[in-house]
Amino acid sequence: MELHSFFNSSASYRVRIALNLKGLPYEYVPVNIRTGEHRDREYVERINPSAGVPALVDGDFSLGQSLAIIDWLDQIHPEPLLIPGEIDARARVLELATLIACDIHPVNNMRILKYLDSVLKVTPEQKNAWYRHWIVEGMQAVERLLTDTGGDDWCIGDAPTLADCCLIPQIANAERMGCDLTPYSRSMRIYQRAMQHPAFFTAAPKQQPDYTN
Amino acid sequence: MELHSFFNSSASYRVRIALNLKGLPYEYVPVNIRTGEHRDREYVERINPSAGVPALVDGDFSLGQSLAIIDWLDQIHPEPLLIPGEIDARARVLELATLIACDIHPVNNMRILKYLDSVLKVTPEQKNAWYRHWIVEGMQAVERLLTDTGGDDWCIGDAPTLADCCLIPQIANAERMGCDLTPYSRSMRIYQRAMQHPAFFTAAPKQQPDYTN
Repeated sequence: MELHSFFNSSASYRVRIALNLKGLPYEYVPVNIRTGEHRDREYVERINPSAGVPALVDGDFSLGQSLAIIDWLDQIHPEPLLIPGEIDARARVLELATLIACDIHPVNNMRILKYLDSVLKVTPEQKNAWYRHWIVEGMQAVERLLTDTGGDDWCIGDAPTLADCCLIPQIANAERMGCDLTPYSRSMRIYQRAMQHPAFFTAAPKQQPDYTN
Repeated sequence: MELHSFFNSSASYRVRIALNLKGLPYEYVPVNIRTGEHRDREYVERINPSAGVPALVDGDFSLGQSLAIIDWLDQIHPEPLLIPGEIDARARVLELATLIACDIHPVNNMRILKYLDSVLKVTPEQKNAWYRHWIVEGMQAVERLLTDTGGDDWCIGDAPTLADCCLIPQIANAERMGCDLTPYSRSMRIYQRAMQHPAFFTAAPKQQPDYTN
């Protein structure tokens, strides 16, 4: 399998964690979204019509969108299952994962911050305030959900799930942007725990072949 | 079951379609997100820690996030299945649904447009340009995916799926905001078809008890 990925993309980071948790080897294909490689005609036509990262390629099959990819991995390599089969746990995992993937990450990703800069010409202070605003709102919701559902080490239950695949990259992103994350004690405990786990550690941006400072 | 919903919320609209497709009766509980009812302490504590709409309540069980709710409905009322079991179709449905739910809808929803207005003080022209920019980018990607995977009447295969539950509200939203949707011919054909289907028609904003002009 090939993973088309950018080291700093949170969505790519989610899939790297999932592949590692399942112990699946893959070829890392860097796609530099800073220079717009995800919009190259050949990439969009042959690899990912969504024009983004990540994309997973397995022979003739290629698939974009991180949550769809992780569900697909669960179908073909179910050990360990990252979206549980048990109905209640499954609902909680998907609720938390989509809170992060739909409500938090999209409004703070690179293309949005670039638009604020280059089209709306906001000041650096306004851009930082935008980023922090959605982190505060989103992470407060994450903490409330974890209070209802969380285990001690992982978001839901006693093993990593899709929810952890989404939470860890989101926290790493917010940390890199200099957000104060101390109010989110449950999330941070899970983050510290995950950073000790090889599947999460080796998926981190700094461990990727295309990492640059 | 109770559905906590706002008539104009695309995420609520998705779940209304899913409930209708499955023929499940429900009590409609309006939550006015324009006046901030989704942030009321009792709603957040008792119904939806994500502080948004929709939320589904079934006895002691309550769940937020539209994609998690539709997956849960598939688990407990599998007829008709909205996320197919067959691996390839399932991947395509989730890819298209999450393209809409993660890449398009979140950056144009009410809270973002409000922030642009009230905090960044953008002009109405700038706000409209923002909205249209993400619609063009996102709908072009939708069309490319439909070219690869689409049937004639529905997004994937010959029956409505989660992808249609996401696409129809997104198009209705863009239409309401005055976007030119003629370039997206496959999407528009599916939209016109869906508007003839009672499950979609009765889920539309204008048919809801809290509809106001």
